[in-house]
Formats: sequence, C-alpha cells, structure tokens
Amino acid sequence: MFDLIINNGKVVTAKDSFKADVGIKNGKILAIGERLKGNSRTEIIDAKGKLVMPGAIDVHVHLQLPFCGTVSADDFENGTKAAACGGVTTVIDYAIQTKGSTITEAIKARKKEAETKVCVDYSLHGGITDWNDRTQKEVGEIIKKEGIPSFKMFMIYKTQGWMADDGALYQALETTAPLGGMIMVHAESVFVLDMLVARYHEIKNKVSAYGHVLSRPNFTEYEAVQRAVLWAEVTGGKLYVVHISTGEACDILKRSQEKGARVYGETCPQYLLLDDSVFKGKDGHLYATCPQIKKKKDSLRLWKALYDGELAIVSTDTCTFDKKQKAMWKGDFTKIPFGMPGVETMLPLTFHFGKKKGFSINKIVEICCTNPAKLHGLYPEKGTLAIGSDADIVVYDPNIKVKIDYHKLQTNCDWSPYQGWQIQGWPTVTLSRGKIVAMNAKFVGEKGWGRFVKRKPFGEIR
Amino acid sequence: MFDLIINNGKVVTAKDSFKADVGIKNGKILAIGERLKGNSRTEIIDAKGKLVMPGAIDVHVHLQLPFCGTVSADDFENGTKAAACGGVTTVIDYAIQTKGSTITEAIKARKKEAETKVCVDYSLHGGITDWNDRTQKEVGEIIKKEGIPSFKMFMIYKTQGWMADDGALYQALETTAPLGGMIMVHAESVFVLDMLVARYHEIKNKVSAYGHVLSRPNFTEYEAVQRAVLWAEVTGGKLYVVHISTGEACDILKRSQEKGARVYGETCPQYLLLDDSVFKGKDGHLYATCPQIKKKKDSLRLWKALYDGELAIVSTDTCTFDKKQKAMWKGDFTKIPFGMPGVETMLPLTFHFGKKKGFSINKIVEICCTNPAKLHGLYPEKGTLAIGSDADIVVYDPNIKVKIDYHKLQTNCDWSPYQGWQIQGWPTVTLSRGKIVAMNAKFVGEKGWGRFVKRKPFGEIR
Amino acid sequence: MFDLIINNGKVVTAKDSFKADVGIKNGKILAIGERLKGNSRTEIIDAKGKLVMPGAIDVHVHLQLPFCGTVSADDFENGTKAAACGGVTTVIDYAIQTKGSTITEAIKARKKEAETKVCVDYSLHGGITDWNDRTQKEVGEIIKKEGIPSFKMFMIYKTQGWMADDGALYQALETTAPLGGMIMVHAESVFVLDMLVARYHEIKNKVSAYGHVLSRPNFTEYEAVQRAVLWAEVTGGKLYVVHISTGEACDILKRSQEKGARVYGETCPQYLLLDDSVFKGKDGHLYATCPQIKKKKDSLRLWKALYDGELAIVSTDTCTFDKKQKAMWKGDFTKIPFGMPGVETMLPLTFHFGKKKGFSINKIVEICCTNPAKLHGLYPEKGTLAIGSDADIVVYDPNIKVKIDYHKLQTNCDWSPYQGWQIQGWPTVTLSRGKIVAMNAKFVGEKGWGRFVKRKPFGEIR
Amino acid sequence: MFDLIINNGKVVTAKDSFKADVGIKNGKILAIGERLKGNSRTEIIDAKGKLVMPGAIDVHVHLQLPFCGTVSADDFENGTKAAACGGVTTVIDYAIQTKGSTITEAIKARKKEAETKVCVDYSLHGGITDWNDRTQKEVGEIIKKEGIPSFKMFMIYKTQGWMADDGALYQALETTAPLGGMIMVHAESVFVLDMLVARYHEIKNKVSAYGHVLSRPNFTEYEAVQRAVLWAEVTGGKLYVVHISTGEACDILKRSQEKGARVYGETCPQYLLLDDSVFKGKDGHLYATCPQIKKKKDSLRLWKALYDGELAIVSTDTCTFDKKQKAMWKGDFTKIPFGMPGVETMLPLTFHFGKKKGFSINKIVEICCTNPAKLHGLYPEKGTLAIGSDADIVVYDPNIKVKIDYHKLQTNCDWSPYQGWQIQGWPTVTLSRGKIVAMNAKFVGEKGWGRFVKRKPFGEIR
Repeated sequence: MFDLIINNGKVVTAKDSFKADVGIKNGKILAIGERLKGNSRTEIIDAKGKLVMPGAIDVHVHLQLPFCGTVSADDFENGTKAAACGGVTTVIDYAIQTKGSTITEAIKARKKEAETKVCVDYSLHGGITDWNDRTQKEVGEIIKKEGIPSFKMFMIYKTQGWMADDGALYQALETTAPLGGMIMVHAESVFVLDMLVARYHEIKNKVSAYGHVLSRPNFTEYEAVQRAVLWAEVTGGKLYVVHISTGEACDILKRSQEKGARVYGETCPQYLLLDDSVFKGKDGHLYATCPQIKKKKDSLRLWKALYDGELAIVSTDTCTFDKKQKAMWKGDFTKIPFGMPGVETMLPLTFHFGKKKGFSINKIVEICCTNPAKLHGLYPEKGTLAIGSDADIVVYDPNIKVKIDYHKLQTNCDWSPYQGWQIQGWPTVTLSRGKIVAMNAKFVGEKGWGRFVKRKPFGEIR
Repeated sequence: MFDLIINNGKVVTAKDSFKADVGIKNGKILAIGERLKGNSRTEIIDAKGKLVMPGAIDVHVHLQLPFCGTVSADDFENGTKAAACGGVTTVIDYAIQTKGSTITEAIKARKKEAETKVCVDYSLHGGITDWNDRTQKEVGEIIKKEGIPSFKMFMIYKTQGWMADDGALYQALETTAPLGGMIMVHAESVFVLDMLVARYHEIKNKVSAYGHVLSRPNFTEYEAVQRAVLWAEVTGGKLYVVHISTGEACDILKRSQEKGARVYGETCPQYLLLDDSVFKGKDGHLYATCPQIKKKKDSLRLWKALYDGELAIVSTDTCTFDKKQKAMWKGDFTKIPFGMPGVETMLPLTFHFGKKKGFSINKIVEICCTNPAKLHGLYPEKGTLAIGSDADIVVYDPNIKVKIDYHKLQTNCDWSPYQGWQIQGWPTVTLSRGKIVAMNAKFVGEKGWGRFVKRKPFGEIR
Repeated sequence: MFDLIINNGKVVTAKDSFKADVGIKNGKILAIGERLKGNSRTEIIDAKGKLVMPGAIDVHVHLQLPFCGTVSADDFENGTKAAACGGVTTVIDYAIQTKGSTITEAIKARKKEAETKVCVDYSLHGGITDWNDRTQKEVGEIIKKEGIPSFKMFMIYKTQGWMADDGALYQALETTAPLGGMIMVHAESVFVLDMLVARYHEIKNKVSAYGHVLSRPNFTEYEAVQRAVLWAEVTGGKLYVVHISTGEACDILKRSQEKGARVYGETCPQYLLLDDSVFKGKDGHLYATCPQIKKKKDSLRLWKALYDGELAIVSTDTCTFDKKQKAMWKGDFTKIPFGMPGVETMLPLTFHFGKKKGFSINKIVEICCTNPAKLHGLYPEKGTLAIGSDADIVVYDPNIKVKIDYHKLQTNCDWSPYQGWQIQGWPTVTLSRGKIVAMNAKFVGEKGWGRFVKRKPFGEIR
Repeated sequence: MFDLIINNGKVVTAKDSFKADVGIKNGKILAIGERLKGNSRTEIIDAKGKLVMPGAIDVHVHLQLPFCGTVSADDFENGTKAAACGGVTTVIDYAIQTKGSTITEAIKARKKEAETKVCVDYSLHGGITDWNDRTQKEVGEIIKKEGIPSFKMFMIYKTQGWMADDGALYQALETTAPLGGMIMVHAESVFVLDMLVARYHEIKNKVSAYGHVLSRPNFTEYEAVQRAVLWAEVTGGKLYVVHISTGEACDILKRSQEKGARVYGETCPQYLLLDDSVFKGKDGHLYATCPQIKKKKDSLRLWKALYDGELAIVSTDTCTFDKKQKAMWKGDFTKIPFGMPGVETMLPLTFHFGKKKGFSINKIVEICCTNPAKLHGLYPEKGTLAIGSDADIVVYDPNIKVKIDYHKLQTNCDWSPYQGWQIQGWPTVTLSRGKIVAMNAKFVGEKGWGRFVKRKPFGEIR
C-alpha cells in the first residue's frame, strides 16, 4: 500500500504531460495512475491545479567553499535547505585535489564536511589540479568505486596552481573516456586573460567593477572552448563545459556535436537573465562571477542553444557571497570573491522565463531534471518520474505570483541578483525520496537526511 | 477497477524505460505502477521479459488504392489486420481530390470505403490536385470540422493532372499555416524527371526495370525537396516531405531546420534497408516504388537523419501489389504499378535494424510512435503511454527470432521485399483501445472495430 | 614604327599598375615601355596624370530591342556611340530565336541590323526560346562556326512563350558543356512570380509602380538561381546568371563555386547603386527593370560578391526607354517597358563607387574588362593590355569631377537614374582597335567601324 | 637605349601571357613589346620557345643557421647561388632575437653575415622570442626604418625559450597591425606536442624516424593554426602561417578569410609532393623537417588550397643538412637536425607538378612570384614584369626534361628528397636586376651582388 499519494496533479516528464496521481512507497514511485487509492496510513498531497515534476538537479554548486580568504556563505546545511525550498532534490558539489595530494583524499574530506549536514541527496565531481601518473591511475578507481565519473579541470588559474595545460587536458580526456568518465572544464584562455587582467588592473580605479568585463572579452571564453572541444574530438573523450556564457561557445559546441563528438555544455540563470550592464551600477561588484555575465545577444543565443539542444543543462554555479564578503574587493575588480546565490531560484527562474521563450514544460523538465540526471549518471533513479525511480518530486504551482525577495529566501545572503523581480510559478511541495522536505518555500525536512549518491559512468542523453 | 492489466513488462516511452505494470480501463490507460491489482473480472497479460510500448502509427498507407488500372491488394480490412499483426495501431490513408471536385467529397467517399472494414483506428490526409478558390476556402473547414490538418500535394504527375505547380504549393503553404495545417509533398522534379523518363523509355528493353533507377537520379528528388523547403521558409508554412529516399534531401532539411523553418520528413523501411541493386535482379520490377530505392550511401544518411532528428518519422508508403499485378509492366519500367507491402513489418524491421545502428528502444518508440502522433495531431491520445491515453499498446518480445516469410504474413501479397530475412523481435500482443486485436502475429480482433480519429492542428515535436 | 603612342600614363591591368607608354601599330598594342619613340607620322596622346586601361566590355545590352510594342531607344548606332563615350569598346547583344525558327536565323537577322551601324566592336549571345532536336544540333554549329559560345534562356515569360522549363535548361546545359558553350539564364521563379504578379495586379491602382517590388520578393530570384545552379552542378554545364539582384543569389553561387561547379554571375550598376525606394517616387515607373532593383542590404552583398569573386562581371542590361515610352504603363506596373540606359555610365560609376568601397583600380579593370573578356571568349584580344592585343584602350582621368546629366550624355534618353550625381573620374580618350572613337565624352569615330567579333569557347577566369 | 633585350619569348605574368620582347636598362624593365630594337652595345637573349617570367621569391629560407649544434649547410653565398640556378631572384631569411637582446641587434648581425656573400637580393624577417615593452617599441621602428614589416613567432620550442605564449602573440598582432606589420607563426600545439614527443621518445628505438610522425598528429598543427587565427580575428592583426602541412589548417584559414580576417598561409614543395611514408625508409631521418611531412590527403588539400587561394604562397623553408649532419640523430628522432635543401628546386617542381594539377602558368607565377612580393612588401619592384620593375627575370624552358640529381645541383648537400625524379621545365637564364646570374642551371653571377631590399608595410594580395 502507498505511503503517500500525490493526487489530481498534472504529471510532467521530459516527454509527456497528463493528469494522474502518483503513488509512493518506501521512497520510490510505485504507481502513476488515475484515482490511486491508499489506506488510512497513506499520506495525501492534493496537487489539483499543480504540476507534478521530477525534482531538479543542480549539477554545479560550491557550498562552504574556501575562496579569496573567505568561505562561501551557504554551507552544506543551509545550501541544501535552499535547494529543497527551490525544488532541487540533488546537488553536485566539487572535491578538488590539493596539489601534491590525491583526488581521493579530497573526496574523503569533502564527504566528511557534507555528510552530517546535507538535507537533500548529493554527489561530488572530482577536481584535478595536478595531473600525474598517480592521478591517472586514481581516476579509474574513483569512477568505479566511488561512483564519481566526472572530473573538473581548470584551463585558467595558473598562478593559483590549479591550471591544467593542454597536455594534461588531453591526457585526462584520453584516460577517462574508455572508463566511462567525463572531463568538465572551466574554459577561459589563460595567457591572454592574465595579460588583459593585468592591463586593466593598472587602471583599476578608472574601470571599477566594469574592469571585470573589459578584461574578459567573449573570446577569452570561446577560444578555450574551441580548444577543449578539439582535444575532445581527437581523443574521443567526453567533455562537459561548465557555465557557458557566450554565444560563440554555443556555435562551437554545435559544430562539434554535428561531427559526432561527445561535447556538452551547461549554462546558468545569471547568463540567461542578466547582462553585463549590471557591472556599471554602484553595486556592480556583487554580480561578479567567473566567467562574468556577458551581453544581451549572448543571453539570446544561450536560450536558443538550450532550445536546440547544444546546451543540455541549466545549473547554477552557486557560490554565495554576502555583501560583507563582496566588500573585500575595495575597488579592485581582481579581488572580488566571484560567485552568487542561485540553487534556490534556478527552477522558478527557468520555468518562468523559459515559458516566456516558448519552452514547453516538458522541455524545462528536460534541461533542469532529466538531462542533468542522464549526463551525470543519476538516471533513472533521479531526473524523471518513472515507476521504481526515487520519489524526488516537486509539486509545482504554475500560477502563483512571487516577488523575489532575499529576505524570504533560505539562502544565507543579504542580496539577490533578482531582487524584486515578479515571476509566476514556484514549488509548493518538495519530496526527497518520498519525504516532504519543503512546503511553500519553507524547509520542513531534517538535517543530514541527504545521502551521497553513487553515480554511473557516462550515458548518452538521447 | 482495471479491465486489463499488463504485468511485469518493461514500459518504454520515447524518454523512459522502467519495469512496471500497466492498468487499462474503458480503453484507456488508467495506471502504470508496480504490482497493480485487478479483480476477478480483470484480464491479465503477462509481459515478463517483454517490452510494453505505445502502438506504432503508420502515417502513410494506400489501402485499396486504384492505380495503374488495378487496385492495391490490401484493402481497408486486410491492410489494417496486417497493421495490427505488426504492432501498428493507427494508420493514416489518403483522400485525394478528384479534379473538378472537392477534397470534402473525397474524404466522404474514402471514409465510406473504410468505415465498415477498418480493424484499427485510422485517419485520412486530404489530397489536393486542384488548387483554386474553392479549395482555398475548403481547407480551413476540413482542418476544423473534419479533424484533418494535413494535405498532400504532388510535385510530379503532370500528365495525370495531379501535379501542383510552385504557385499552388506556395499558396497552399501560405493558406494552411495560420490555420494549423500542414502541407505534405511528394517531391520530385517534374520537368527533368519526365524528360529523363522519356529518354530511358526509348531504350526500355535494354534497361528493363533498372530504367526506373536510371531515370530518377538523386537530384530528381533533392531538387524538388530544396524547392518545396524554400517555399515553406518564405511562406512560414509547415511542410512535410513524404518518403524521403536520398541523403541530399536530409542535408537540405537540416539546413532549413537550423534556420527555424518548420520542415519535416519521413522515410520508409525500403529506403533504409534496401538499395537499388535490387532492380538488377530478375524480379527487379517487384521492388519499384515511387520514388525508387536509392544507393547504400543514401540508406546510411537516412539512418543518421533519423538519429539526429532531421527525419522525424518512419512510415511505410504501403501500397501492396502482388506478382500478378506487377506483371502488367511487361518490360516497360514506366508501366510498373509502384508500391509494395509494408505496414506489417515496419515496427519489427525498424526495431531490429535500429538497434543494430545503436538506436535506443526509446528512440525507436519516438520515430515509430511518438513523433508520428505529435506531428500528425494524434498526441497524447495516441503515440505514448500516459495516463489517460488510448490503450493502443504493443507487448513486444525483443528476443524472439523471426524469419520473415510472406506466407505467414497477413498482407495479401505473394512476395516480400524482406523474404527470408532473419530478425529478432516481434509484437506478441497488440491492443487497440484496450482490446486485444492481435496475438503472436495473428489477427484476433474484429472487422470494423477501428474508428476514424479526428486529428488536432499541427503541433511541434519538441 | 608606331602609329600612335599613349605617353606618360599609368598603365593598369587586372594585376599590375605602372608608369609606361603604350605603342600601337595596325590597331594592336606593339609595345609597352618607358619613353617609347615614334616618328613624324606617329600620333601622340599625352596621358600624364591619367590611367591607361583596357576598354571596358559590356556583355549585356539590348539595342533597338522590340519590347512591349515599342523599340528600345538606343539603336546599334547610338548605343555604341554611347558605349564609346563611356569607355566601353565592345558590347554583346542578343539574337533571340523566334519560336518555330532557328537561332541561326536570328543571328543572321540581328547582324544585319547591326553591321552598318555599330561604332565599336560587338558580338551576340544566342537566345533559346524553343529547345528541340533542331536546336540541339544547331548550338554546336553556332559555337564552332559563328563564334557564339553563349546562349540565353529565360526561366520566366511563360505566357510570352519564351520560357525554358527545367527539362530544356537541363538539356541545354548538358549539350553545350562538352562543346565549350555556356548557358545564360534569366533566373526568376515563373509559377510563383506569375501568381504574385496577378495578385498585385488586382490592386494595381493601390500599389502603383511599387507593385513591381511587391510582386517580386527576393525569393522569386534566388529560388530560380538555386535551381539553375543545381542543374549546372549535376550536368557539369557552364552556367552564367545574368543581372543578379539579390544577396541570397550570391550566397548560392558561392556555395556552388566552392563545390567546383562552373557557375558564374554578373550584376549591373542599378543593382549596386540604387534601392527599391525609387519605386515609391512619382516617377518610380521609370526605374522598372526586370528583375527590379532590390534592397540596400542586397546592394551591399552584391558589392562584396564582386570583391570576393562570386560575381565575376559588371554589365548593364542596357535597354533604354525614354519617358514617353515609359508612359505607356498608365498606372499598371505590369505594362511598364522594363529597362534603362546604362552602357555609357557603367565604367565611371563602377570606378567611382568601387574605389569608395575599397576596390583597387586593378580590381575594377578585372570586373569591367578582363573577366568579361575571359568568360565570354574575347580574351586576350580584348580585355587586357598585352602585347599583340587589340588596341581597345581607355585613357581615364581619375580626377575629373563630373555631374551626371542626361542632356550631356550620348544615350537617346530624356532621363537618367543617376541624374545630378557627382562622381569623380571619366574616360578622356577611347580607342577602338587603335582608332580614337571618343574624346572627352564626345563620339569622334565613324558609324559602322565596329566589327562582329567571333568568340572562343568557354574559358576559365583564373 | 636598352642594355639587354630578351627576344621572342612568351611573357608571363600572374594574369597575362603573350609573345613579346622585354627591354632592360639600368637593371629595370624599360619596355615590353614586339620587335624591340637595341644597338650594338645591347646584349640579346633569345627566348624563342621559352617563357619569360618574373624571378621567383622564396620568402622562407634559413641559410647558415646554427641549429642542433651544427650550422645549416648552405650559407648565404652558396644558398643564393642555388637560388639563382633555380630561378629564385630574392630570398627572405630570418633575424631572430636572442633572449634578453633586441631584434634590431639580430638584424644587424644577420645582415653582416649576409652582405658580402649574397648573390641575389635578399631581405630578413624579424624573429621575436622575447616579447616585452622594449620589443613592443622596437617593432615600429623596424617596420619604418629597417624596411622589415614581418616578424616571426614560435608557438612551440618552450624548452628552448623561443616560445611565444598566446598573450605575447595577441599583443604582437595588436601592436603591429596599425603599423603595417605582419606576424608570422610557426603553429604547433606546444603542450600536447611536448607530451606526445616525450611519450614516443620513451620508445624511440622501436619507432625510429617514424616517431617524428607519431608524435605530431595533424591536430598538433591545426589546433595551433586555429588558435593563432582566432587571435588575428579578434585583434585585427595580420597573420601569416608558415609551412602549412595539413589539410585541416587550410579549412581553418578558409573559414577565417571568408569572415574577412587577414590571415594568410604558405606551404612548401615537400608538403605538396611527399608523404610521411618516407619516414619508414632506411634513410627516413633525412626527410625530417618541422613540422613533418603529412599524409597524401593533406597534399591534395594543400594543392587545392593554392588553387583556390586559401594558401597564397609556395616557399621552401630551406634549411640544408647533409647526411653527416643528419647522422647526429643516432636513432633518436628528437635529435634529428630538422630541415632539407629546397630553394633551388622550388620553381621547377611547382611548375612541373602544378601544371599536372591543372594550374595555368599564370597561376604558378602568382604563387611563386607575385603573391610573395605583394604579401611581403616587395611589389611592384619584384614579383611581376612591369615597366619600371627590377629586371629580376627568369627565362624558362617549359620543355626541357630534367632528372633531378643532387650531384648536379648547386646546393651543398649530398642527398635530395627528389633524387632521380624526372620533371619537365627548368630555368635557362636568371637575371638579377638585369644581370645574368645563372645560365643553364650554372651560377655565373658574382658573390656579393645581392642587396638587402627594404620592404614596404603589409599590402593586400587582391
């Protein structure tokens, strides 16, 4: 007999929409049908007039990340509470190798930080900063035993010692591909970027926060994307480009995908919804992320890329810094802690603006739920509403009008890039493995409920 | 309580696959879930080890079609029995305007021919052979009242008086687009084609059935496709190119789709699986369809186009002629009754060879069931397994080994283009609105069970 | 010893520019060098500060053409006087087959009209309006014996009986290619065009001269270009598209040329310099040509196509109609005699505006002189300054400022599309086979001096 | 009166071919014409049956280059003698900055090495190995005062300290463009290349000379070309990619040129005529150049790129090493002195094989003479036959049959990559500024005759 039934809603998957009830048992979906019946112990959620969707998956968050001498303001506890409130039922954070040490160590440490705190399920991407023989051996083990098939490499951050040069990137792609691994890259052109940053740093007082824009013309992203994509093509490696912000990068992905290469991309709401005029405001520095937000025409191209499939996923790159933390920049754009809150508003923003752009709700489920699950090895347990899948479910009210206000959000942040925006639609109930963890944008779950989820090797999205 | 439950199968939609039972009531899907329970009156189908798929939809059949002085050998009765045996639960045939008369008349007449005979659900495409003011007015009515949103036009058959010139095609696209209509074209280049046919007809004894190949080089198709696509682009019309046989046509569709035009294409098993060497054989004339089967490289491109989405649909252009009918050609390739059986083997062939090509079963469902339903206005009643949808369902055995033999097929034909082929997989049970109409490749339904289905205006497939 | 020396000028060919004298003997260039010396009988032209260029070649003129019940206002005499005054030393007109008769007859008749009148050298293109067995045989003879390797076909003018359908076009390309012939096409989409013309003709009073624009959207040209180009590709034929007016047609040519097809195009000053806003003026009907002048963005693309080489030639489509002739339209845009004067201003306009667009003078020589000669079989006798070539030479003053005024032009026309335009540069002296035929924009040659020039089979331009 | 007349030849420029005499006075071309007449002091060269062409220009030679602990075997004297014998009348060598020093110093030193030895005219490219503020200032001076507008940068040779990273390349392009300078790059992907070289070095005994091939897959070139081209696009810089060896690099240049970027390329006979099967032979190491010779399909694409204009120039990268020098490798492919003789056979090989490929003699003049002069600022003094140009002329016998034999060549080398090849055509007489410097493949000029030629800033080639 069902533990819980969601009644009368409109079930939405990446492909279909239909009226039906959803019956849950032992944290999994047991049945979808008309007029499902429980017994006296069955909890009932009435979803009349609501959508019943798979929980969203944010594959790119940085919770309690030490950065620029501070730590990002949402920790594993509060960050995953925010996730739950926003309809995100799984997050993937990073475990980045310390130079001289191993990824395995980093994973261990990061899991320890997370495990007693996380409120929804989570996973980690490995982060490679030191490609060497030991690393090469380690990745196979991590894919197989740790259930972590994805590894991030940075094409920039040379002075920080994180940078992977093309030789390392090539080898990582070459090594991981036959093992079912995927390489994720932060793609920016290190040598030209560093030169331009230095150039504008010399006039930092004159350019203020807008120096961040001036020093990162579109080509600093798309050159690196083009290069990474080429290495994927020639090695047969699987490449995933994180936080794509330029239209040109989408063109490059498209051309490569047409050749049959396994190259994928994600973008984030900030790149879809804002443009770099924000850096001209008095509080421009708040908006600094890395890479930075680009032009209006880039946003348009990014939406089109999501629609056409060149970009597969919306994620957030959540890395919350509050005003006090941001203030550390003191007028030097190179000293801004880069990052902003995001996981809590991802689904509502994508839903609201996606619909305006003509996306069907199925398409929105695809880019926020199903594709993240498929590409990152969580499918079919997560990312869809199928019999036997985890009951990670969002009951979504498509009609509720919400004015975004950071005071009312769970995130530990005293500002929001979307403050005061009027949107329509927000999650009413969020279930994590059949348990109600958020209701009406309030967290009602328990700390530590979330589990580390082992992911499968790379899978195609079509 | 359920009328019927399909137990223990693997439910397959265009997006998901999972183990679950399917419960049916009043001809519709009532629930999908684990361990669904019926009562004593509930019929049970055990689908253990089987796939449970939406019934396939063949959007291109010509049953009992008068052609070349004969009538195609599968009538509405036997043709739809064959459909049921092959897992096809809906067919769409044509109601072609007689010059000087109306499409509405043709629809009326065709429905009369069909209604007492059809054994699965069916619809009709309108056929326009005489574009004039009356026709222009009529199409809106037909879309709205008859539930027929698609109209076929022929770019060839000038001497037969069926041909639509570019002016008519342009106006039809322009007229139907705002009404939710779609124009289907048989795309071949009439002037060059007629000239080449005449050229090879002069040496018909020398070229025999292969004259059909010689007189229809690839460009006779792709020039016309290119032209039709251009008219769709400039009018904003919705264009559907039937029976695409050349690789170049796929390139043209792709370029146009990338521009955002609403241009779609189908291909058929004969173009995917055979090549024009068949025309060199002694019984080459049997294989003559219009357009004819092309080269191996075209087949490869067609498969890729299905995979990448440039072609949305597999259909059959079923137009059965038996050996006696085919014999009327008497060595003149221009006199062959063009057409072959197909509806019964469409799904098994696509399944078997699609899998070999690396298509997932979800993808096969997409091109045989979901896309036909979406593009042709039958979704979500047909084409998917959703709660509330018609219980048009196929229980498919993916492991059974079958040797194709026309003796054992339902189709009224004494030969098969695939005679003796060994394939794996065949429908075990076919349901039409919850009623079992075929079991183990035998028809067990009743004559006249099928209903005419009103279709919705044009809908996007993504 | 030289008959004539052009002293101190700057010699300009399609590739080089250098100071040198040019020595002429017996109508041919005998030497190019510094300080060439003649004797007392040698005529001297001082070209100090001037350019010494090959005479321009206008490959597209219609002199004394019967059209719309009148005859174009510049006859072979006055038209070629105008040519001489404008630096054009060779013109190519048309000999168009009368339905039921032969091209050979038309050539004979046209030569008769021309021979006693022409003031510079000329040739003819054959015009095919009736492709049949006799025509097929005839073209080989004409290429070989008449020295006419180019044949024009019309893709429109169905009601006039001039139209060649695709079958005829295909056969003409196929037939002429191995014989060194080239097919020229007037490319517009007949069926859609006729339909649109009829549609706007119904509201002719409302749309006035602008109906000409409305009834010929860009696609009525580029669809036909695309089709003709395809037939050239598949037959291996040589195709030359006359008077290209749309940007899209250039894109199509480019793609085909990249595949290695022999497809070429010309455009005319009116398409490069005017836009269709002219049709909104009170005298809009004066500007009507066929095809009509398109948009500003088309002009920009046409210039780029000349620069990049997709279009090889500037010609004029000269077909002079004066105001009285134009007045015959009486408000019905379908009744306007299509055409305008042009041969006299071609070189100065291309020179002035080409330089503004960044064209070198070598490039201007290439598109006005050398490419016309090469593509149309007149090279190297015409179209360059080489030793042994005909002394068809223009001494060009690049600095003179000229205000275009039809009163001062030779052309028999009481209006000019460029009336009052200020440009820089005009021919000072024009030589035809060593004889001075124009000085300071006045004709000083003799009637009947021009000769019919036999042309060679098709030659590449690079 | 003429000092020298070349009689009765066929004059060939990049555009025209015609029979004429060429009259020379004071080292320059004074006249081109029929039956030029000298006086008793005029020297006469009878060129009957011969072609009279501009002298070829080899823009890429390394004479007496210290490399791998030895010095390339053709010094400025013998190398330029070889040039003269092969019809090359100007060479451009390199003056490469020593780290910590200036380019100006390098130029001074290199000129000193050259000036008393060179037998034909020469120039130098600057070489930048250390981009810094001083270098940035220096380049402007060098362009203006030294007459050296081109600067080479290496994208590889990291360990040697020559490598320019992307930041330096970007700045050099940005700095030189407005000054009329051009940046030349050796484009290979340093990080991946070094990694692959190390990988194959570990099994050097097993792979022998073929390790050179294995460690440099095509992508090690075309990735770098793609990157350099992108920097040229975004800076507006003029980029010239030396010794292009892969087909993919041509595709990249083409796409960028179509966008209007100023990106150019050269290739060399070894890449056009040989393929990497040579490295499998016993003397495979002799053929090692950097980059190495690629596959047959690359050669085909390179020829097409020359024909279509994506590659503008044939040069040689002459860097002669004899067998003894090459023997230093001792089985380690990373220790081979990279380079081979070439300047002497460039024109005859390009002529012979170019004609086989369907190149006109004008096209051969264009890629060997005119384009090198135009792109490298030597035009019109060099690179064409125009009045007033330097009398750097080759009388070329197109019919003579020659078997290439290093014993008979001037180059100081005891092997030839083309040993024993039968070709047709060779220079009969080579003139340098009106002086005969080679006859019948023997040097007859004088040591030190050559002068350093100041070059102009960057000029377009069309």
